[in-house]
Amino acid sequence: MGIIEDLSKTIETRLEAAPAESYVASLNEKGTNYIIEKISEETTEAILAAKDFDKSPESVKNLTHEIADLWFHSMVLLAHFDIKPDEVLKVLQDRFGHSGLAEKAKRANKENR
Amino acid sequence: MGIIEDLSKTIETRLEAAPAESYVASLNEKGTNYIIEKISEETTEAILAAKDFDKSPESVKNLTHEIADLWFHSMVLLAHFDIKPDEVLKVLQDRFGHSGLAEKAKRANKENR
Amino acid sequence: MGIIEDLSKTIETRLEAAPAESYVASLNEKGTNYIIEKISEETTEAILAAKDFDKSPESVKNLTHEIADLWFHSMVLLAHFDIKPDEVLKVLQDRFGHSGLAEKAKRANKENR
Amino acid sequence: MGIIEDLSKTIETRLEAAPAESYVASLNEKGTNYIIEKISEETTEAILAAKDFDKSPESVKNLTHEIADLWFHSMVLLAHFDIKPDEVLKVLQDRFGHSGLAEKAKRANKENR
Repeated sequence: MGIIEDLSKTIETRLEAAPAESYVASLNEKGTNYIIEKISEETTEAILAAKDFDKSPESVKNLTHEIADLWFHSMVLLAHFDIKPDEVLKVLQDRFGHSGLAEKAKRANKENR
Repeated sequence: MGIIEDLSKTIETRLEAAPAESYVASLNEKGTNYIIEKISEETTEAILAAKDFDKSPESVKNLTHEIADLWFHSMVLLAHFDIKPDEVLKVLQDRFGHSGLAEKAKRANKENR
Repeated sequence: MGIIEDLSKTIETRLEAAPAESYVASLNEKGTNYIIEKISEETTEAILAAKDFDKSPESVKNLTHEIADLWFHSMVLLAHFDIKPDEVLKVLQDRFGHSGLAEKAKRANKENR
Repeated sequence: MGIIEDLSKTIETRLEAAPAESYVASLNEKGTNYIIEKISEETTEAILAAKDFDKSPESVKNLTHEIADLWFHSMVLLAHFDIKPDEVLKVLQDRFGHSGLAEKAKRANKENR
């Protein structure tokens, strides 16, 4: 089982915990707007880490951690709406897992929006 | 091998492709600011999908696809800076994979920033 | 009459125009989510202009234009909901126009949220 | 003198204050990344206020205040880089103050980017 699926199970378990004892449960209790504000905050921190990137180990670590925070809070949002990250992974696999053709199709689709 | 690692290899391969033939290569060629603008755009689309969520299959599909787009463009940013998503997965595993203790430590850390 | 109030009247007039003939009318017709996506896009462009700021006339011009775009699209959002920018200016004046006391009160308020 | 110009003078004066006594001075001291994070936060709060808008006086007040916060923090960013909001107002006036022609030109420009 992959790490995303593993982490997803952990998040699901913690949704049931007391908010005072779990960060996941506290996010879930605060609701959609609060989780969205966290996702937006982590996106901005990832953007700043990318702009401040200078190949130093510190900047590599910083960007890696901000993307981890972004993915983690995305997974909490999915769990909040009872969606499994497996569904996200399937979308990624369908689009990009097999050949360049699906990728090109997606690109065309995006550009025609 | 997990889907993230699999997709990561696909992205790395396509970085070398001609920009006209690969969306990944075209993003990479346009540079950091362009990739950042895409990540920001996908975050906003995910936020709107979350606010418009009504449990309908359409809204589930919409949110799932927006999070997939956000993760995908995050992975392109990592590849642009030559960082493997494995590093992000390791951070997630270290923080959340084993027990609630690491999660609580992270939370305290965030609040003291 | 100030420039904001002047621009506000222009925006109101153009809301009534044919979408094919006015950018304001076309934004308004596309709806809330579309206007929000533009505001988010202009915020990201302002953030990138701030990070790329190097005191050169070009970077001063770039940041100035991105903030203008952000304020303009904010005013379109207000007009979309039939709110006058005068109301925004009043809030700013009440909080910051007279003394440091209101500012300090606001700050305390923010921190206690 | 308009409210924006008035507020701008207040912000400039407070930049010189002790950070412990002025919110503006404390933002300025924390630097570019911190101010950017505040602008991003206010944009997200404005987006949520727009999505939660239901014509109630409470929702009108909420959106008005979030846009005021966004404009205020934009002005602090400008002051941080020693740019007068007058410059922003001039850009807005040039583009939108006189006729629909400038607006249409801008729109074409945006679409060709």
